[in-house]
Amino acid sequence: MKIVLLGSGNVATHLAKALKVKGEDVVQVYSPNLNHANLLAHLIAAEAINDLNEVKQDADLYIISVKDDAIETVAQSLKQVTGLVVHTSGTTDISVLSAQVKKAGVFYPLQTFSKSKEVSFENIPLCIEANGESELTILNKLAAKISRQVYQLDGGKRKVLHLAAVFACNFPNHLYALANKILNQNGLDFEIIRPLIAETADKVMSNLPENVQTGPAVRADESTLNKHLSMLTDMPELQNIYLTLSDSIKLTLK
Amino acid sequence: MKIVLLGSGNVATHLAKALKVKGEDVVQVYSPNLNHANLLAHLIAAEAINDLNEVKQDADLYIISVKDDAIETVAQSLKQVTGLVVHTSGTTDISVLSAQVKKAGVFYPLQTFSKSKEVSFENIPLCIEANGESELTILNKLAAKISRQVYQLDGGKRKVLHLAAVFACNFPNHLYALANKILNQNGLDFEIIRPLIAETADKVMSNLPENVQTGPAVRADESTLNKHLSMLTDMPELQNIYLTLSDSIKLTLK
Repeated sequence: MKIVLLGSGNVATHLAKALKVKGEDVVQVYSPNLNHANLLAHLIAAEAINDLNEVKQDADLYIISVKDDAIETVAQSLKQVTGLVVHTSGTTDISVLSAQVKKAGVFYPLQTFSKSKEVSFENIPLCIEANGESELTILNKLAAKISRQVYQLDGGKRKVLHLAAVFACNFPNHLYALANKILNQNGLDFEIIRPLIAETADKVMSNLPENVQTGPAVRADESTLNKHLSMLTDMPELQNIYLTLSDSIKLTLK
Repeated sequence: MKIVLLGSGNVATHLAKALKVKGEDVVQVYSPNLNHANLLAHLIAAEAINDLNEVKQDADLYIISVKDDAIETVAQSLKQVTGLVVHTSGTTDISVLSAQVKKAGVFYPLQTFSKSKEVSFENIPLCIEANGESELTILNKLAAKISRQVYQLDGGKRKVLHLAAVFACNFPNHLYALANKILNQNGLDFEIIRPLIAETADKVMSNLPENVQTGPAVRADESTLNKHLSMLTDMPELQNIYLTLSDSIKLTLK
């Protein structure tokens, strides 16, 4: 398949590499910043462009992987293409595309991407959606090439998934950061707590989290809960978070 | 070393197995419930007892691994022993032991243990403390036998670590459970989100969490934040948590 990639951020970069490895032909990379386009285009032997008017009109697939609020503008520039146009957003409705182009779809990888860390796309769930059966077939085939987990989800379910991902990824990472803050303020290094973080995640690979909850709140150990709250007197923000999450854990006991 | 283990819960069980593998001689396992004592004693070829008066008086080390509020009572029964007495608690002061016994110490493994899941003790940070130099040497030697990460921490730092562990382990696990709740209510399976949880934890094995935060809050993406909040209208508890943690993430931007 002849593919044009519109975007050069983390999702675009990881996706482009995975497609390239599987022999797909990513012919162009667009970014409003030509340096950014060049960086990624160079990696996958594509052409870098920074003008939407230069987008090739004869590609089979256009992947829009830009910030959510820029998707519509990019889609407007693809009104004339006959190929399938997809975005990679968890929260954006397919209608944002189908209002502009004939063949629209979604190709949403459920993962947290960093520039600095490689991930194996094989283990990344890919959520696909399309406004036609043949388009869905195309996306299904492409998704199955690069991932072992492909889900056909409508926009409503995809948005639910994106919300759940905030609870399962963004919030836990912030709690790691708060743990690090507590450690640092007391001359302790984040290194000491890494094995605990790894095991906590590993546990739920084969269990449901509600079945393996540990800690003072799930034991209703008020003595420890009060000790912890008093240790956070100088950090009211953390105290509030401690209380809010402990109360929520205690609700599961009822 | 001749060791008596007082307790038969998750920490006691994992610790006993690790000691046994390294050739330590765990001679007795105490639990008020003889069935529980038997289960663990059987695994490590020790004697099971359920009466503190039957505790052997000539052991080198007594490991008290019971609920925090039961440590003192168990320690009282060890007033006459000459061996070293330690507990495995993150939050209990060493003075709870040293008020009762001559040689007191702490042997605190920083990990979340489940009966159903094996863990490699080698990768578990062990935090030790003792009320004398020779006792500290004994604990250091024993700890280094079973773990690659041994830390000498006073009670204050150990309690900080225990508090940080709640943020790094107990709270993230609960957030996984809330994510699962959101998924289930919409007919989605937890399986879909497991790769994201694994990668989120894996990312901070080689990065600091504050450097790899992702999601709408750290992008100050108010549009997505508002969409998510409106999706949680029927779950005010989760809405409150979403708001509290997102606000906390936004504070890091200032």
